[in-house]
Amino acid sequence: MMFINDKRKTPMIKTLIPQTPENETLERSVFFISDGTAITAEVLGHAVLSQFPITLISYTLPFVTSKTRAEEVRDQINAIYQQTQIRPLVFYSIISDEVKSIITRSNGFCQDIVQTLVAPIQQEIGLEPQPELHRTHGLSKKNLGQYDARIAAIDYTLAHDDGISLRNLDQAHVIILGVSRCGKTPTSLYLAMQFGIQAANYPFTSDDMDNLQLPPALKPFQHKLFGLTISPERLAAIREERRENSRYASLRQCRIEIAEVEALFRKNKISYLNTTNYSVEEISTKIIDSLGLKRRMF
Amino acid sequence: MMFINDKRKTPMIKTLIPQTPENETLERSVFFISDGTAITAEVLGHAVLSQFPITLISYTLPFVTSKTRAEEVRDQINAIYQQTQIRPLVFYSIISDEVKSIITRSNGFCQDIVQTLVAPIQQEIGLEPQPELHRTHGLSKKNLGQYDARIAAIDYTLAHDDGISLRNLDQAHVIILGVSRCGKTPTSLYLAMQFGIQAANYPFTSDDMDNLQLPPALKPFQHKLFGLTISPERLAAIREERRENSRYASLRQCRIEIAEVEALFRKNKISYLNTTNYSVEEISTKIIDSLGLKRRMF
Repeated sequence: MMFINDKRKTPMIKTLIPQTPENETLERSVFFISDGTAITAEVLGHAVLSQFPITLISYTLPFVTSKTRAEEVRDQINAIYQQTQIRPLVFYSIISDEVKSIITRSNGFCQDIVQTLVAPIQQEIGLEPQPELHRTHGLSKKNLGQYDARIAAIDYTLAHDDGISLRNLDQAHVIILGVSRCGKTPTSLYLAMQFGIQAANYPFTSDDMDNLQLPPALKPFQHKLFGLTISPERLAAIREERRENSRYASLRQCRIEIAEVEALFRKNKISYLNTTNYSVEEISTKIIDSLGLKRRMF
Repeated sequence: MMFINDKRKTPMIKTLIPQTPENETLERSVFFISDGTAITAEVLGHAVLSQFPITLISYTLPFVTSKTRAEEVRDQINAIYQQTQIRPLVFYSIISDEVKSIITRSNGFCQDIVQTLVAPIQQEIGLEPQPELHRTHGLSKKNLGQYDARIAAIDYTLAHDDGISLRNLDQAHVIILGVSRCGKTPTSLYLAMQFGIQAANYPFTSDDMDNLQLPPALKPFQHKLFGLTISPERLAAIREERRENSRYASLRQCRIEIAEVEALFRKNKISYLNTTNYSVEEISTKIIDSLGLKRRMF
């Protein structure tokens, strides 16, 4: 149930907030439309469109479940076509045939992101699809236990962020090590959120650098340790945002810390990754791959 | 760069950790294979397969970028086919034609999740795809600024979790309100991680219940407030996990808190959502939709 107070019951244009166009040539409007969160439509649509040298003006419209809402969306698509005389691209995922047909009869170039792959799979496995089985990013009795485990992983990860607690490390699936601002916290949270992994992380500070050693509390868990490192230049730039002109942010200090920590990783045979050119998604999946962790789906 | 110490250089079978099968009838092996994180392949593959009444034994194999690795993967697919005499389903996304062709010549039933949609889009927009443009979940000079904004959103959200700080609330994109354990923290983190939204959250505690009022510090930001509520039964079950047999977890206490907080939301005309049957993805996208927030893609 969703209660929207009247003051905020905004007109249909509300959701029409275009994303900042990327700095390229040809402009094209694109809609990501779904009867659910539209996250799948966005992720796949971006994967497809990122292959073309075009500037996207994108609109994401989730929870399109009623005829009325579908008609509003159709009118938005048609309005853009009227203005530009170029068909908007439409990536959609909608179960109801009635709602779907309103969208597909718009002036957009419509692509059903899921059904395109359902037909060949149906033929291969010889079973009828039952589209109402469950929502992709939804919650049901069937997956509630798994969902609770995911929330527990987030709780665990927050309670073991930045070395706050070294208790219950036996319950960690991974313990991430590294200097301040090398990406430990976002990576730990992504591991928990996306994959239900209980990720602790532990920072090495400038005070540790004189005689850098692996803390005794971590030694029993060496098989779960994973190091992050980063280029001193990028680290200095990130730290400069936080504490301008500090010793902490100086290139010299960053170089010392990174050299010390990498030496420690090598000495203790801890797998490590240079995060300079990687996103949290990439860092997280590389850690999973390296430690052979279970990759759950939610 | 990835350094794996020898001790842990596990054999090829390492990544073959099957997911827990769902409790259904027909079993089928499925591979999600990518030259990147394989997140897109997983998300879309699950959206497609969730429509069929089958039990999945799934293997996610990211970073398949070399011929050698592709040959290992092909051998894994073929080994399962040999054992079961049933073709594994293979959802893949790989740029290199050489690597791709090794996979597609396996005994799996192979579906290219991205290219299936690239061809029609190519025809519609009349441009050649340039597949190497950028990685879907990757980092490049082009998106580094946006990536930094995402990390800043995570930092902001952590610093404003659970009412820790009421400073800089003018920088919040949303302030989530609710009782303890109704979903504020996971939702805030998901908004930050997935959409780059700076999400503060504020808890109402049992001490507040006698004369529940909107804290003066929040009043200037009423347009950014969003309430979460939950069924007292589910709340009691969640709290029971945390503090068994406590007053905090009692159904009576949960009922009182929920009733008070919902009354406060209504009195102050704060939009709110009952989270009982929703995942963090659904709660987050509903909040974005309700407040008309910008939905960035990473």
